[in-house]
Amino acid sequence: MKALEWMGDSLKILDQTRLPVEIKYRMATTYEEVAEAIEKMEVRGAPAIGAAAAYGYALGAIGYSGELAGLSAHMEKVQHRLAETRPTAVNLFWALRRMEDRLRDQHEAKELAEIRQALVAEAENIAEDDRRVNRLIGEHGNAIVTAEANILTHCNAGALATVEYGTALGVIRAAQQAGKKVHVYAGETRPFLQGARLTALELMNDHIPVTLIADNMAGFLMQQGNIDLVIVGADRIAANGDTANKIGTYSLAVLAHAHGIPFYVAAPTSTIDLKVPSGQDIPIEERNPKELREVFGVQVAPPEVPVYNPAFDVTPAKLITGIITEKGIVTSPYSVNLLKMMVRS
Amino acid sequence: MKALEWMGDSLKILDQTRLPVEIKYRMATTYEEVAEAIEKMEVRGAPAIGAAAAYGYALGAIGYSGELAGLSAHMEKVQHRLAETRPTAVNLFWALRRMEDRLRDQHEAKELAEIRQALVAEAENIAEDDRRVNRLIGEHGNAIVTAEANILTHCNAGALATVEYGTALGVIRAAQQAGKKVHVYAGETRPFLQGARLTALELMNDHIPVTLIADNMAGFLMQQGNIDLVIVGADRIAANGDTANKIGTYSLAVLAHAHGIPFYVAAPTSTIDLKVPSGQDIPIEERNPKELREVFGVQVAPPEVPVYNPAFDVTPAKLITGIITEKGIVTSPYSVNLLKMMVRS
Repeated sequence: MKALEWMGDSLKILDQTRLPVEIKYRMATTYEEVAEAIEKMEVRGAPAIGAAAAYGYALGAIGYSGELAGLSAHMEKVQHRLAETRPTAVNLFWALRRMEDRLRDQHEAKELAEIRQALVAEAENIAEDDRRVNRLIGEHGNAIVTAEANILTHCNAGALATVEYGTALGVIRAAQQAGKKVHVYAGETRPFLQGARLTALELMNDHIPVTLIADNMAGFLMQQGNIDLVIVGADRIAANGDTANKIGTYSLAVLAHAHGIPFYVAAPTSTIDLKVPSGQDIPIEERNPKELREVFGVQVAPPEVPVYNPAFDVTPAKLITGIITEKGIVTSPYSVNLLKMMVRS
Repeated sequence: MKALEWMGDSLKILDQTRLPVEIKYRMATTYEEVAEAIEKMEVRGAPAIGAAAAYGYALGAIGYSGELAGLSAHMEKVQHRLAETRPTAVNLFWALRRMEDRLRDQHEAKELAEIRQALVAEAENIAEDDRRVNRLIGEHGNAIVTAEANILTHCNAGALATVEYGTALGVIRAAQQAGKKVHVYAGETRPFLQGARLTALELMNDHIPVTLIADNMAGFLMQQGNIDLVIVGADRIAANGDTANKIGTYSLAVLAHAHGIPFYVAAPTSTIDLKVPSGQDIPIEERNPKELREVFGVQVAPPEVPVYNPAFDVTPAKLITGIITEKGIVTSPYSVNLLKMMVRS
């Protein structure tokens, strides 16, 4: 079960809104379809969104049949459409910039076909990089997992949130493969239930012991001494280490701090946004009130009740024990150490 | 819309499991039906459970048609059945003890009819006391609400959790009636969604401004400065002030403490259990895993995923700013002040 797969001229997207009840795919042949799939959260997770957008960009070039001279303007439109799908995760913008750079490299190309090929190749590179990077995050992260560990995670930062393997769940996979006895508590992650629907499914498929909890049970588990470690993914990491991630992450970080439990973020360096000085500058997406009023179309609240539905929150760097990347684990002071790592090749 | 209503020879119970989608009632004519309604959480909320059990006890006597000499043994069975429905909320045991005492007072009665009448009268007294007590909690609690306040509450400690008016929501009602500008954030309260289904409904019906949030959004709201006060109900308060309440309450208390936000518990003195020295001694009910795997019968997680589903947690007294009761507001040191209040008539 892969979040996305390039089929040569289309992108096969696993519709994650239907999991675990239904395994359904969308065959996206246009950039517009990819944009829609991102907006509807059929594909989600910062690294997977980045890769999907890159393929969407390539599909934008494949779908263009005008004059070569008009391609640049068309691709700007494509990029704009893909960029407006979701505001918080920075991997989306990072991947689109990488594609844009690749397009610029082709300014001497004589044939549309040549450019298309180069863009598909770049999207494939982005996807391949993600596969490699997740394995490295797992290797580095394994170091912070003890021989036996009850690990709490939030949302889904797994294979389904990436091209393969996962970030937070990649660390957990690596620890289990290293022979450690891990057990995961998966917070269900309201309102979209990525923990209940996706993390539970992924871990069960991989025979990694998992127990599903409601998000509001995390504090009680910590109080009882049942959590040794928290690992979550990230949607954007500011230059000072402040980290935007799925709503509920901040509450978990405060709770972990109050109970003296290590709190780690696992993310590729493409999630780090040095142009954003602190978490205050990260835009937070608000989503449809229906996500709270209904569950899978079933009404669970008064239909007219006012709702606040932010999709992300920001965890201040001071609550983060370490950030696990493909280049190693970064710790405080993040302003210095993130910059150091990013300039290192 | 009342949680329960005595109809002379039966108890009309609002089936809260179907709200807000369906308004359905159960007409309980036997103690067994009342026990079932409590177990299935058709009636829920510590004070409402207490009153329902009292009426159930009376129905146990009404349903008995044997010899007078056999009544006592029968009523023991009735009491046992009602007591085993839910372990955490102490009001259940408190109300049953009150009924048992009343039955003992009747040891010289010659007629079954006389005893039945006395037991119905006592159940009515318990219900009437709850109405009065909730108004007093509101009056006392109003003192801690500022002229304008964003108040976070959890679960439903409202009219639907009591005979009338509510505890935590009683305070909010009293504050609004006193002309204060209150706005409530209602945590949806997974897994049973009492916040989304019941609190949202109650407050909208009363034209008290309410915004529904997922439980995991509370920390983010506090971080943004959008919560002035937290008020919750209670299912059992130990002699040292430790308070069992709906799962998720402890997380909110830790978060409130970390953000310097006052955290109040509102409950009648019948919720205080001086026989229990601390929260560690309060039994915590675990409920069916299906409550997390399904929402209103719709699957939202892998059907076989292991689940941990405690219905309550315990908030240590040190995180509680004050306990609002019908006798006034108790503050630290709770071991001393709760005892003082309880011995005061």
